[in-house]
Amino acid sequence: MMNGAESLVRTLVASGVDVCFSNPGTSEMHFVAALDRVEGMRCVLGLFEGVVTGMADGYARMAEKPASTLLHLGPGLGNGLANLHNAKKAFTPVVNIVGEHATYHVEHNAPLTADIEGIARPVSGWVKTSMSAKDVAKDGAEAVAASMGVPGQIATLILPANTAWEESDGPAAPVQPVDRPKAPAEAIRAAAAALVSGEECMIHMSDTALMGEALEMAGRIAAKTGCRLSCKTSNRRWERGAGRVPVERVQYPVDIALKQLSSVKHLVLLGAPVPVAFFAYPNKPSVLIPESCNVVEVAPEGYDLLAALRDIAEELGATDIEPIRQEASKPDLMSGELTPESIASAIGHFMPKDAIIADESVTSGRGLMPFTAGTEQHDWLSLTGGSIGIGMPYATGAAIACPDRKVICLEGDGSGMYTLQALWTQAREKCDVVNVIFANRTYEILKGELMNVGAQNPGRKAFDMLEIGRPDLDWRQLAEGMGVPATRATTAEEFNQQFERALNEPGPHLIEAWM
Amino acid sequence: MMNGAESLVRTLVASGVDVCFSNPGTSEMHFVAALDRVEGMRCVLGLFEGVVTGMADGYARMAEKPASTLLHLGPGLGNGLANLHNAKKAFTPVVNIVGEHATYHVEHNAPLTADIEGIARPVSGWVKTSMSAKDVAKDGAEAVAASMGVPGQIATLILPANTAWEESDGPAAPVQPVDRPKAPAEAIRAAAAALVSGEECMIHMSDTALMGEALEMAGRIAAKTGCRLSCKTSNRRWERGAGRVPVERVQYPVDIALKQLSSVKHLVLLGAPVPVAFFAYPNKPSVLIPESCNVVEVAPEGYDLLAALRDIAEELGATDIEPIRQEASKPDLMSGELTPESIASAIGHFMPKDAIIADESVTSGRGLMPFTAGTEQHDWLSLTGGSIGIGMPYATGAAIACPDRKVICLEGDGSGMYTLQALWTQAREKCDVVNVIFANRTYEILKGELMNVGAQNPGRKAFDMLEIGRPDLDWRQLAEGMGVPATRATTAEEFNQQFERALNEPGPHLIEAWM
Repeated sequence: MMNGAESLVRTLVASGVDVCFSNPGTSEMHFVAALDRVEGMRCVLGLFEGVVTGMADGYARMAEKPASTLLHLGPGLGNGLANLHNAKKAFTPVVNIVGEHATYHVEHNAPLTADIEGIARPVSGWVKTSMSAKDVAKDGAEAVAASMGVPGQIATLILPANTAWEESDGPAAPVQPVDRPKAPAEAIRAAAAALVSGEECMIHMSDTALMGEALEMAGRIAAKTGCRLSCKTSNRRWERGAGRVPVERVQYPVDIALKQLSSVKHLVLLGAPVPVAFFAYPNKPSVLIPESCNVVEVAPEGYDLLAALRDIAEELGATDIEPIRQEASKPDLMSGELTPESIASAIGHFMPKDAIIADESVTSGRGLMPFTAGTEQHDWLSLTGGSIGIGMPYATGAAIACPDRKVICLEGDGSGMYTLQALWTQAREKCDVVNVIFANRTYEILKGELMNVGAQNPGRKAFDMLEIGRPDLDWRQLAEGMGVPATRATTAEEFNQQFERALNEPGPHLIEAWM
Repeated sequence: MMNGAESLVRTLVASGVDVCFSNPGTSEMHFVAALDRVEGMRCVLGLFEGVVTGMADGYARMAEKPASTLLHLGPGLGNGLANLHNAKKAFTPVVNIVGEHATYHVEHNAPLTADIEGIARPVSGWVKTSMSAKDVAKDGAEAVAASMGVPGQIATLILPANTAWEESDGPAAPVQPVDRPKAPAEAIRAAAAALVSGEECMIHMSDTALMGEALEMAGRIAAKTGCRLSCKTSNRRWERGAGRVPVERVQYPVDIALKQLSSVKHLVLLGAPVPVAFFAYPNKPSVLIPESCNVVEVAPEGYDLLAALRDIAEELGATDIEPIRQEASKPDLMSGELTPESIASAIGHFMPKDAIIADESVTSGRGLMPFTAGTEQHDWLSLTGGSIGIGMPYATGAAIACPDRKVICLEGDGSGMYTLQALWTQAREKCDVVNVIFANRTYEILKGELMNVGAQNPGRKAFDMLEIGRPDLDWRQLAEGMGVPATRATTAEEFNQQFERALNEPGPHLIEAWM
């Protein structure tokens, strides 16, 4: 006989889901045991569920297909919620397998009993509890297809323990995900009209428009019409570097973003909504474009953005035009004081070809863009949902997806502490990740925000909540305690040398940039 | 003018809530700024929200009143969910203050926008979003009263940023919590009848029955009738030690628990439900008492259990009887190999008077009970909801609540990794906590559970998900990286010496018990 757990593992593999990021418990033991009976599923352990879900996000961003997670009942899912929120906002496909008590045991309200569907729903586009071992495989195939729906989303399949151990009908056939919808013809024409209006026009993009042929096509339209190309502050994945089509990112600080967008007369949206402020501030607007701006929504996230851009280019006779391209340029190394700029210079200078940047550098990294624009081609992953603690997990997941590429994780010391357990998985799986910790010993962003929101007369107690020194963290010890070699850089020269060396050695490294 | 945030802080202080465990963000900056304008609120920073909520639980267990938490929007609450689950299952009062976007900003779906009420509901008995600065104080007073309702529960107040910065009407008067209900007279009589039936009777207790006068009264009844006294496997707080009324704990392993309860003819429930298995296992029952057992439910959690026990004692003429009492006995120290037993001996041997045991030792700690039964009087806190990662957080919260008492945190290495950031708060707040890490480098409990659930033929891939070596964690480095002095013990002698020394020094310590 084949039990429900094994039927599910076989169905996942048949559906193309061949990595499972796991933090299992008792209810998931049959799933775990099935892993040894099924070929083709790689299983990666995380010591905390926020690491597990963040890894699944990073993996799917690079692999362009979902991984599964294996989580232990409601609290295990709860621990993974923040990074699932980030994945949700990135429209990343993720398939969660969440264990549950046996169907007949739930009514007894044992300690771990919780409303798992209720916990899942705020982050999941698809939620289902399998009620019989015979349903598990079919539900699993549906979960995979749902995760790859339009747009990508979180699918959460809840697996009562007895449906895992009871007899199944064997694996289910994969379910074909729906096709990407096409943008309507009138939206294409409206976009083309805006682009040839003679007034300032900006194509604002995210999702798949920031990659491959779609990005090239946007570059052709820009070359033909002189329009601006912009993207969200934070994107699931953004292809950048010398020779790629350059795109300006909408800035995080509201006043700067308002200025950046103040002259735009026509905003053409492809896979991105109208830019809005990250937070509301007293007496500042939520919407960042001028009221008079003409907005043309061509297609939202999950649509066929390449086809939409090609259709626009055809309307404009731009399909054969050479795209605008970023010129090559590498910053020189700096010396002396270690600053965000000197670190940005080193990153631009040493960037290896096809690197993956897993960015969660928050304030310290705001100046990184110009230093890296013209360097070797790379992918840039961003904190899409604003929930800090994704950096080292998604760096790890990206490294699992792309073992031949170097991952550079840019991490704040404050944000890194949320999910530092990811370092252990990097060590176990020998991931090629260079983790750079911007160690400024404060929640620096909050010091600015305290003023931005107009808080009056903050004093010692308030600042104590924003400073994470006293005692200082020692990231060398934290990393080495989890098996990752680590160094501290206190000058630009030390950083430059340590960063170059770390890039040239296999396996994970951590550099604490002590500023 | 007084803004909404300040009106809330003043209301909380007036309602007796004078500690706030915090991990704030932009939306909470006005609350943070108000802390410096209001006397009497101690603010304790955690570097991760699971630490924050676990500290609030530990604090309230010892202080017998709620602390507040300060959390950043949906994902911040999500990170705190697992330990709120544990607090919910303990019926611990907790008041969550969760920031939210300004009311007018929510519709713009900025990155951090989430269904905060939806995330809160599975763990909260009371949820409310303040919609105006003028409501915030009143809502805050209601939240405090709700948390102290019957039984204790989580109250989550969601605070849109503009309700924090706009003008309020000043603080609100405290709301009186409801009185603890009394057990019905017929239940008292039924309990008394069972106790004098001549058949084996067990009083099964938890909640406030395991403390103070209520526990004494149970001991009088046991002295009078010869009944057994038992408690749940995991309890919010349990007063133990020499001279206290001894209570047997229902065992975690199902087969042992079934045997333990097999002869019980009458089960009298006071603040605890009928014992059930923690998990379901194939071909084993969920309910642990014999089908023929007569169950008398006197009063559930949150009722006046002292009054109920006194009423039963009065029926039996037992109010003036000397209670059964635990004899004093301290285990001798062991030597040689470091084992769970040698550690348990040292804990029992060196236990300081009025120590607080924050237990999350999982498998390693199952043998602790007999070694500590007759030692100095102490309070025992347990993992009530089964969601690992509460140990070091609730130890920290207990130390904040009881600065004059020594806290001993017994922590598995697997479970400790979920919320290791608590060590940093212990260092910052100079908490008197001795953390003992049972470093066996596996999720030992899962190895047993893999067999218990009948999983067939587990192999290398399965065991890789249960073993947390490769690489080994080094808890000395992890602790010292967060400012907590740490040592490793590899023999019983080393452990005994290190444990005695740590108990005699102020501030936090960590001992990695390397087995």
